[in-house]
Amino acid sequence: MVDIKDYMREKAALVDSRLERLLPSADKMPPSVHKAMRYSVFAGGKRLRPILSLTTGELLGKVDQNLLDIACALEMVHTYSLIHDDLPCMDDDDFRRGKPSLHKAYTEGIAVLAGDALHALAFEILAAKAPPILVVEVAQAIGSQGMIGGQVLDLESEGKEVTPQQVEYIHQHKTGFLIRTAVRAGAICREAGGEALGALTRYGERIGLAFQIIDDILDMEGSYKNLGKRTGADQARGKVTYPKVFGLEDSRELAEKLIQEAKGDLLSFGPDANILSQIAEFIVRRIE
Amino acid sequence: MVDIKDYMREKAALVDSRLERLLPSADKMPPSVHKAMRYSVFAGGKRLRPILSLTTGELLGKVDQNLLDIACALEMVHTYSLIHDDLPCMDDDDFRRGKPSLHKAYTEGIAVLAGDALHALAFEILAAKAPPILVVEVAQAIGSQGMIGGQVLDLESEGKEVTPQQVEYIHQHKTGFLIRTAVRAGAICREAGGEALGALTRYGERIGLAFQIIDDILDMEGSYKNLGKRTGADQARGKVTYPKVFGLEDSRELAEKLIQEAKGDLLSFGPDANILSQIAEFIVRRIE
Repeated sequence: MVDIKDYMREKAALVDSRLERLLPSADKMPPSVHKAMRYSVFAGGKRLRPILSLTTGELLGKVDQNLLDIACALEMVHTYSLIHDDLPCMDDDDFRRGKPSLHKAYTEGIAVLAGDALHALAFEILAAKAPPILVVEVAQAIGSQGMIGGQVLDLESEGKEVTPQQVEYIHQHKTGFLIRTAVRAGAICREAGGEALGALTRYGERIGLAFQIIDDILDMEGSYKNLGKRTGADQARGKVTYPKVFGLEDSRELAEKLIQEAKGDLLSFGPDANILSQIAEFIVRRIE
Repeated sequence: MVDIKDYMREKAALVDSRLERLLPSADKMPPSVHKAMRYSVFAGGKRLRPILSLTTGELLGKVDQNLLDIACALEMVHTYSLIHDDLPCMDDDDFRRGKPSLHKAYTEGIAVLAGDALHALAFEILAAKAPPILVVEVAQAIGSQGMIGGQVLDLESEGKEVTPQQVEYIHQHKTGFLIRTAVRAGAICREAGGEALGALTRYGERIGLAFQIIDDILDMEGSYKNLGKRTGADQARGKVTYPKVFGLEDSRELAEKLIQEAKGDLLSFGPDANILSQIAEFIVRRIE
């Protein structure tokens, strides 16, 4: 039985050292945008998405350099989405992971462009290292009917009453699709198909939704220290959250139920899937 | 001898009708972002980049559906870059092609997200239809050491004295690389290599730089009517332009020289390259 925190720290270090090489160095022309890209990528993320890709890859075979690069590209996509999400015209967040958001540390213009550059770099890496079918899937997961779609509805729902269906749409699209794709990336690179891919896809969907529900709960309850950003910000902006729509207790229960179901999705893999199972637990235990 | 204006109109119509099908319909969830994407894509662009891909493809063989889709993806990339470029934190342009810029017609938040969505959709199409080597090339052409790099230096040079080398860097990166890639896309899809690819690459570089020089001159001299956006805007913002650094007459001469050289690059293709040659002329004749 591995210690899941040690495991995740070790994998995060592997991802960090590869990201260090994949990102253009800070003195490359024009330096400001490369410094900005590095500022946000190395702001202390947990690397959940790349860890999911790597762990799924390990479950089904071996992790090679290509999968590591694909995993890093997904982290770049995630970082670009956070940079744009923090902009004044979006969530207007001045802090991210305990540091000033990129547009505060640099300028709004550089933040828009550094996000765009990470977006392009991610596809440069994916096109070189991933099977085309996976590149297409990533693009769909983060496009107007995926992550961007969730962000749009999130932005437009501020201060409005929303239905349970709408909050589920927002969370599934804004956060869930990329997490599901991160899990699937490891499986697709190992040429998994049929029932194995189906089970991992459901696992990815469930932990993705649970992750966002927990994030909402942490925003409502957590302290600046634990989360590294303003908390209560969602409420102040009238953001759509699970606790707001379903109440705190029901949200907790739903997250717990999703995590149990996600662990159930892994049963056919036997004890080999123990780490993925612990990652699911880790997501919901962040709360405690 | 084809009439170049008729030719370009015909090809633009072909591109438009394909873009119509490639873009999600305006009633897809969430409708606002899909309407916004369509607003900008169908704002009346000349479709120069896709026309270059198609014409180069025709020169070297046949244009198939894949190349048409790739050409449309390049137009989506171009449109996304214009949307972000017009934002208040960037060039702060309220008009584009005679219509309110996207962030004026919608909101800044939707403009950021619609640009991001076009960026992702372009790579979804490219990954499905283009050889991976071309997808990598597009990503590099528009990344932090390509188009974005040029936009960063452009933004940071406002109101400053710049060297001729810097203005060349900005224009080559901001505009030139994507135009060069549009030409190369047609050649790479037809599996051109060696001298043919080299000659077309030089042609693309020269017309790309000439195009931006002419754009600068039009901004200084042109009327709102011809350009569909505020003119004199570059000067008002202290933007780096060729006329500012080299003077109006020398800029005209340089553009003219680049076009003649670009036509020279086509000599080995004989009369078949007549249309590419006329497109080069068209770029510089916009001025008259």
